[in-house]
Amino acid sequence: MSVQKATAIARANIAFIKFWGQRDAELNLPANSSLSMNLAGLTTITTVEFSPDYDDDLVSLDGREARGEARQRIVAHLDRVRAMAGLQVKARVISENSFPVGAGLASSASGFAALSLAASRAAGLALSERELSILARFGSGSACRSIPGGFTEWTAGTSSEDSFARQIAPPEHWELRDVIAIISRAHKPVGSIKGHALAPSSHLYQARVASVADRLAQAKAALLEKDLATLGPLIEEDAISMHAVMMTSRPPIYYWLPGSIQLIHQVQSWRAEGLEVYFTFDAGPNVHLICQAADQAEVERRLRDIAGMLEVIVSGPGPEARVVESF
Amino acid sequence: MSVQKATAIARANIAFIKFWGQRDAELNLPANSSLSMNLAGLTTITTVEFSPDYDDDLVSLDGREARGEARQRIVAHLDRVRAMAGLQVKARVISENSFPVGAGLASSASGFAALSLAASRAAGLALSERELSILARFGSGSACRSIPGGFTEWTAGTSSEDSFARQIAPPEHWELRDVIAIISRAHKPVGSIKGHALAPSSHLYQARVASVADRLAQAKAALLEKDLATLGPLIEEDAISMHAVMMTSRPPIYYWLPGSIQLIHQVQSWRAEGLEVYFTFDAGPNVHLICQAADQAEVERRLRDIAGMLEVIVSGPGPEARVVESF
Repeated sequence: MSVQKATAIARANIAFIKFWGQRDAELNLPANSSLSMNLAGLTTITTVEFSPDYDDDLVSLDGREARGEARQRIVAHLDRVRAMAGLQVKARVISENSFPVGAGLASSASGFAALSLAASRAAGLALSERELSILARFGSGSACRSIPGGFTEWTAGTSSEDSFARQIAPPEHWELRDVIAIISRAHKPVGSIKGHALAPSSHLYQARVASVADRLAQAKAALLEKDLATLGPLIEEDAISMHAVMMTSRPPIYYWLPGSIQLIHQVQSWRAEGLEVYFTFDAGPNVHLICQAADQAEVERRLRDIAGMLEVIVSGPGPEARVVESF
Repeated sequence: MSVQKATAIARANIAFIKFWGQRDAELNLPANSSLSMNLAGLTTITTVEFSPDYDDDLVSLDGREARGEARQRIVAHLDRVRAMAGLQVKARVISENSFPVGAGLASSASGFAALSLAASRAAGLALSERELSILARFGSGSACRSIPGGFTEWTAGTSSEDSFARQIAPPEHWELRDVIAIISRAHKPVGSIKGHALAPSSHLYQARVASVADRLAQAKAALLEKDLATLGPLIEEDAISMHAVMMTSRPPIYYWLPGSIQLIHQVQSWRAEGLEVYFTFDAGPNVHLICQAADQAEVERRLRDIAGMLEVIVSGPGPEARVVESF
């Protein structure tokens, strides 16, 4: 068998309506649908090479040999691809992120999206967008949203086959910006996999899940109409709702830091001054400030003036996961 | 008619299981029962004097003439007492708090408890504890819990007549301490009356209300058994649950400040080090640290070492509302 190799690029995404908690942990079926924007500037580039020369799967993440659980998740994903392709050989995986990992910037989303595309292509498979999204979902739920381009909706679905993400608007639909305030680069105290498993132990969980459909429908309509004044409060409410579930799970998970609350107040006072900007959070302390392109520079400037701000990362809507090269 | 005058003292209380949202705003009937500890060190002393010499009700709070809404709430309460006593004359009210007002330290609880007792006694009424608790409830919901001494439970009830607080254990039952970290003395952005009215607009409200009965039963049992390891996590969960409702109401209310989150993390790490302390919040940013008397000095010492700490107030369980003098 000849060497089979492919490189793919995928983007992280920021969810406007979040996913927290699963209906089926084995299949990574979410408790509710979600809505997100791919982030052009936050990329993972992954090369997968299947070769009979390798005795074992070798995984390099950001220049370091992956070990333990991190490696195991990737090997399990390679196994899925090998099973689909009827392939027996081991692989070498090299993956590079353009942004800090494990700080609530959804590196697993871009990572498993790029891995799904690179591995399937290297294995000789030509999967449809839908098939790729389903495959990516098995690696990390939110990775399925990083397969299509622009603004995507992950429909919870009723089974593995209909739980995948679709584009609802292309990147050029709306010049939104995610201005990310990095206030901590520390790894999360509790990883998302464990967090999702704890979600149902919160007394607020069922109410949150039940509330999502309405909020998502309103947010989707606002997004399609480019109505930030309607979309923004829905985004904020959903982020708070998710963190409320986290903080009331048993045991509770506190992802927020003092700077997270500081920025919640800051965003409100900026808005009162006429700057149209809204906040959201992933499963971490860093704050994603959502605004239109015209306000990006001002939001960035104000963020950089805040004491304790480690870094500000700005991104517009990004394209779909793409193959960069294949051999 | 002769001068009728009485002075009463009442204590603020800290709720271990909170009340947020009302079944009936007119009668101040709460959506759920609540559980609290009176705070010996946080007192309001109120003198009420009914006299035909006054042309209008005069209200002095902490040495300042009350005006507007603050005065109106007190006048409405005097009207209730006048109606009960068949009294027509105006009153002079002088009230002094031993602690900062409007910063989530439940000044309205001790205030309306002291006012209810002083005014009813000055009006010549000898109300039972139950009647006083019901009267205080009309002034401010949580004030009904400041009428009996020690640890009290406010049963939500089904009507005005059975919605009042009872003692579940006297102050000497358990040497608990509330070590209050004052990180802000600013007045609340949204007062409790408005906040209670907004509560049902949160998509998490019904789930929170439905969850209280179980949590309260467990907390009450733990309190009676002096089992802080069981009581503490229930107190924390309930406080987070209340703030989750606040932050997801429409519009949302963010009472927390950066220091609030800092102390949530701090308490967790102190506990990991073996210091048995738990946090709770009222409708404000200040953090109430609950511990046993033996740990009070250490909790206090650690709090005072934290930058930005304005003041630390310590209180043990306090007695019932009492008449200080009557004429």
